[in-house]
Amino acid sequence: MDMLARIQQALEQELTCALSPSAPPRLMAAMRHAVFPGGARIRPQLCLAVAQACGDDAPELTDAAAVAIELLHCASLVHDDMPCFDDADLRRGLPSVHKLHGEPLALLSGDGLIVMAFQAMARAGARHPGRLTGLLATLCSAAGAPDGIVAGQAWECEPRASLSRYQRAKTGALFVASTCAGAQAAGADPQGWRSLGECLGEAYQVADDIRDVMLGSDELGKPSGQDAQHHRPSAADDLGLAGALSYFQQLMQDAVDAVPYCAHRGAMRALVLQESARLIPPDTCERIASATPSAPRAGFIPLRSAVA
Amino acid sequence: MDMLARIQQALEQELTCALSPSAPPRLMAAMRHAVFPGGARIRPQLCLAVAQACGDDAPELTDAAAVAIELLHCASLVHDDMPCFDDADLRRGLPSVHKLHGEPLALLSGDGLIVMAFQAMARAGARHPGRLTGLLATLCSAAGAPDGIVAGQAWECEPRASLSRYQRAKTGALFVASTCAGAQAAGADPQGWRSLGECLGEAYQVADDIRDVMLGSDELGKPSGQDAQHHRPSAADDLGLAGALSYFQQLMQDAVDAVPYCAHRGAMRALVLQESARLIPPDTCERIASATPSAPRAGFIPLRSAVA
Repeated sequence: MDMLARIQQALEQELTCALSPSAPPRLMAAMRHAVFPGGARIRPQLCLAVAQACGDDAPELTDAAAVAIELLHCASLVHDDMPCFDDADLRRGLPSVHKLHGEPLALLSGDGLIVMAFQAMARAGARHPGRLTGLLATLCSAAGAPDGIVAGQAWECEPRASLSRYQRAKTGALFVASTCAGAQAAGADPQGWRSLGECLGEAYQVADDIRDVMLGSDELGKPSGQDAQHHRPSAADDLGLAGALSYFQQLMQDAVDAVPYCAHRGAMRALVLQESARLIPPDTCERIASATPSAPRAGFIPLRSAVA
Repeated sequence: MDMLARIQQALEQELTCALSPSAPPRLMAAMRHAVFPGGARIRPQLCLAVAQACGDDAPELTDAAAVAIELLHCASLVHDDMPCFDDADLRRGLPSVHKLHGEPLALLSGDGLIVMAFQAMARAGARHPGRLTGLLATLCSAAGAPDGIVAGQAWECEPRASLSRYQRAKTGALFVASTCAGAQAAGADPQGWRSLGECLGEAYQVADDIRDVMLGSDELGKPSGQDAQHHRPSAADDLGLAGALSYFQQLMQDAVDAVPYCAHRGAMRALVLQESARLIPPDTCERIASATPSAPRAGFIPLRSAVA
């Protein structure tokens, strides 16, 4: 089974298990809408890929960690889209949860998904109690305060915020959790996998900033131009489009270099490169290059790096 | 140290530990405001009392469970008070979190408190991995869907809801978690403690319904008359004030009878009676009796029950 299919199946099982027929039907529908059909599932795929690189000897625990990470991500999207934050009507090309199900159920769906993330860990962790506390600490650190998603989003409510601290918390933390939890679920030391998560998290944020400027709502599946509209710090704004692209490509190169020595290092590095091309497709690089002649062109990431 | 002081200290330690100076200052302030000065802390006191009755041989785990339960409760209050639900300006005699800190930080504070509850468990559970998964399952079941607080609140968004199912989820579940987690933290079987939590949870909800009708905002520390205003199911509405009082007193009697045989059974039953008088004070019983001559009078709960 490929990674995406494995994740979809694990998510489906978790939601079916947690949302029994005794749950309020509208809440169930809103929670499902928050999770399915879903986006690229990049974070849980990263978690699975790292677990596989570390042997994946407890696949049900890996699945739970991947599921928990995706549920925490989905919860943050539901709450971010709400009127008191982005007031976004569109997510993944569909109406956002509050748009379709109303604000009360959007609020509760996010809460329910956070709890469900830990429920997944509790269920799978019963057979691996020795690995559970480390995994929980990783997930809590990525989700809460002082350095996780909640804190990242809260920096938007402060009069001053450091761009890097904001982005590390809002986006980077869950990428770090994805690589670290993948290692922990397989019984490996997470420390060696931390840098990979940090580089990918920052690259992902920079790519998001570029895409927010370059793409229309149709291509994004959500409203475009949100950073400027909400006066949010953005790499595209800070460095210009060409500078942001160059920075993105450097970060992806750093990510490739950060993959530690392990059984499947080559495959892992190839996956990073593949993700790079998905995040900023070659034609987008070309469009930036045409508009700003000094910008790096597509293919700037040296493909030699893919060879372990 | 008395139980309330022990809980306040454990909460203070958890917030200090989780909210390091690197957290966004306004988020920290909003989260603290959600937790302090706090209400009666009845749920964590119940958790501690049951743990003590079961030997309390891992007090740091008991503290974490009590803290987690109170944080989940505080999170639910912050989100319940928000404009898309009760739109309540007042909580515990002070401005509600969204009133003082704005909606975005109220939303994030609730999320952050939910995560912090599990963070507390992860930290304390590292030394007791064998007890952690059961505790996590208890907490998740009380907080999420299909039968926890989130589901309870979500029944308010359904066109039809069973009153007992709604109340069991919205209020009862966390009382059940309080007694069960107290037992689990002390390494005891939680099943024998379940009924006590169920009776107390239902009694607490009925008392809340009575107080919502009988008391003014000043005495409640929050807006009164909320059930009628939001067309919420209420025992006072269903049974009349006298009927609701009679039902409350029967539930407290059931709670007294439900305390299982254990080392401190007498103290535990006395605590239940004490809580009964706190929830509906004798003068409130007298006021209901005066208005409706057939109503039970104060002291209806047979005090013999306090003797183990």
